[in-house]
Amino acid sequence: MIITFLTDFGLQDDFVGACHGVIATIAPDARVIDVTHGVRPGHVLQGALVLANTLPYMPAGIHLSVVDPGVGSGRRALALRDGQGRFHVGPDNGLLLPAVDAFGGVAQAHELANPDYSLQPVSRTFHGRDLFAPAAAHLAAGVALEDLGPPVDPEALVRIEIPEPEVGQNRIRAVALVVDRFGNVALNLKREHLGQTELAAGTRVELVSRGERFYAVFARTFADAPRGALIFYEDSYGSLALAVSRGSAAELLRLEEGGEIVIDLAR
Amino acid sequence: MIITFLTDFGLQDDFVGACHGVIATIAPDARVIDVTHGVRPGHVLQGALVLANTLPYMPAGIHLSVVDPGVGSGRRALALRDGQGRFHVGPDNGLLLPAVDAFGGVAQAHELANPDYSLQPVSRTFHGRDLFAPAAAHLAAGVALEDLGPPVDPEALVRIEIPEPEVGQNRIRAVALVVDRFGNVALNLKREHLGQTELAAGTRVELVSRGERFYAVFARTFADAPRGALIFYEDSYGSLALAVSRGSAAELLRLEEGGEIVIDLAR
Amino acid sequence: MIITFLTDFGLQDDFVGACHGVIATIAPDARVIDVTHGVRPGHVLQGALVLANTLPYMPAGIHLSVVDPGVGSGRRALALRDGQGRFHVGPDNGLLLPAVDAFGGVAQAHELANPDYSLQPVSRTFHGRDLFAPAAAHLAAGVALEDLGPPVDPEALVRIEIPEPEVGQNRIRAVALVVDRFGNVALNLKREHLGQTELAAGTRVELVSRGERFYAVFARTFADAPRGALIFYEDSYGSLALAVSRGSAAELLRLEEGGEIVIDLAR
Repeated sequence: MIITFLTDFGLQDDFVGACHGVIATIAPDARVIDVTHGVRPGHVLQGALVLANTLPYMPAGIHLSVVDPGVGSGRRALALRDGQGRFHVGPDNGLLLPAVDAFGGVAQAHELANPDYSLQPVSRTFHGRDLFAPAAAHLAAGVALEDLGPPVDPEALVRIEIPEPEVGQNRIRAVALVVDRFGNVALNLKREHLGQTELAAGTRVELVSRGERFYAVFARTFADAPRGALIFYEDSYGSLALAVSRGSAAELLRLEEGGEIVIDLAR
Repeated sequence: MIITFLTDFGLQDDFVGACHGVIATIAPDARVIDVTHGVRPGHVLQGALVLANTLPYMPAGIHLSVVDPGVGSGRRALALRDGQGRFHVGPDNGLLLPAVDAFGGVAQAHELANPDYSLQPVSRTFHGRDLFAPAAAHLAAGVALEDLGPPVDPEALVRIEIPEPEVGQNRIRAVALVVDRFGNVALNLKREHLGQTELAAGTRVELVSRGERFYAVFARTFADAPRGALIFYEDSYGSLALAVSRGSAAELLRLEEGGEIVIDLAR
Repeated sequence: MIITFLTDFGLQDDFVGACHGVIATIAPDARVIDVTHGVRPGHVLQGALVLANTLPYMPAGIHLSVVDPGVGSGRRALALRDGQGRFHVGPDNGLLLPAVDAFGGVAQAHELANPDYSLQPVSRTFHGRDLFAPAAAHLAAGVALEDLGPPVDPEALVRIEIPEPEVGQNRIRAVALVVDRFGNVALNLKREHLGQTELAAGTRVELVSRGERFYAVFARTFADAPRGALIFYEDSYGSLALAVSRGSAAELLRLEEGGEIVIDLAR
């Protein structure tokens, strides 16, 4: 059985390793695929987007995801089954739902409340190790979802809001959703949002970031543009994004996750 | 057979990958669990503490650990068996012993001196790849501990000193042992050290770090405190620690590993 | 079957995890060894050197390597078989060849052009996930090399130039090839380059980096030198290198990858 594993734990510390150890102890035959542990600390929205982007590329299994700034508070701990039969384990803070929705929504939800399937005692600050990883491992080892705890009404689960772009006739106001290692900036825009406008390869668009003006060219890939040029393109997850060929768009535009950008299509 | 693997190699270079390759070549059926490779370069004490913290969460097996600023010098290379039958491989610089002690102490110790069980030639600067990983892999493949080299008197092994706090009636002088990705600072203090003092949830304590005064509140988890508040809490490995809710205590207190902090309980 | 995996993707994002997911979906029994994902973004030369250094430590299998600044452009995507029967998958930009040459050269080369063995559609910016990882996984699952696409003339493959040192009677002009986490700097020099010169342990050499003069001592390992001393040594991959005992040579010399250093042997 496959367990995929996504967190904001980073790899500098032992958090991820400790969870791997717990999983291997409970479910020696489970195989863990690390999706990433580089979600920015506490950024539930970023974690949710990365999970939704990557889940289609993961084999079916148990999808363990922990970005959990509310650890130890009253927030629920969850195990879900989606409409396609995949399992999801993580905190009830909205992290899991965009991915689950794309796989048919929540078919069944249970709260992690059965002490037989967590480490004892559960620490107050590391539920990844003590609560979530054990639940995922027990599912992998064959424990039934309903044995993990009482059912939860799917309607009662916490949802996060994914910021919507403002799309006008000639002007789009978008938000930077994810900035990657290469400095590429994925926006909260899909090709559909541009349906009403013309945007052929080579079209020049004007951008405003932090009050400064930039010009970008619509391109299909980095190599279509000269080194250092700013391009506007559809990224590999279908989001519209900004990149600098062999450079960093985030640096050029001084744009961080959550930052706003205005795209002027009229020029 | 499980091999756990902890180093200060980082993941930027190929050091960890090369060791994985060596292990997979010698012991194709061994499974490697990476505990962490983010120990600060050369910090044996930090490595020893992380190993001791995490070992209880690892399945029994061969525990390979390399934080080895003395590589290539006269320091011995070791394979040990602890009182509970787990194996440990690493340099004789104190790294392994706090973890081994918690598992019943050293039952048997051997020096890695048999050239049949290392890569040839052994480089002078990368014993992780040439000496330690091969020894762990050969143990996993069924080689007997005593075949790796001559026995070593357990009393003769190098030990590191874990700094002890000075605990007074109203004042504790502690040291930062581990700073994690979130900026949380684990101190060389356990709940027992506070046995003589009163410290209920909500108690305010005064701290001095680098000559500056701070106030912290004793809390059970991050979510108990308002965003930005400094809390004093028991972390998931049982150490007393400092955190800032959704912020970095290390940054606020300008505290690095090894830095001193004074906790005033009288106020 | 083993798949080794080397990229410049970093571990902060989901790029590596997505490829692992794709491989596990196509070839559930393949085992992936991550060589490193820390190659500097887009640095094909560094990737090629790390691959050539580490391949001898990897079990035979399928060697998947992606450092691909030309993704989406006209550059070919390749699968190769080397003279020793190992398979190599990656872009046709020179990345694979230094490693392949050390394993007997290119025995057979094919372009990845068969849509049956890539994800559909292939994105323009993430061939690691959509093209290279699927090809490696299909090879691992038993697909024949020639089924991946049409043959390519080995002579037509792109090669990169590895910078050669200028070795004079008393003076060597070298280039920093790889700087590691510890600040150690591997040069484009092997012991052979010094064949004509005398260089016993303890010999002092004069260096010039960025116009500044430094003195280094030829040593066998870090521990041979006092803390803070600059040493010149043969590293674990057989390159001559510079290190500072318990410090960073890269920082001391203000030397980055590609930077030049002059070694004066006369003094």
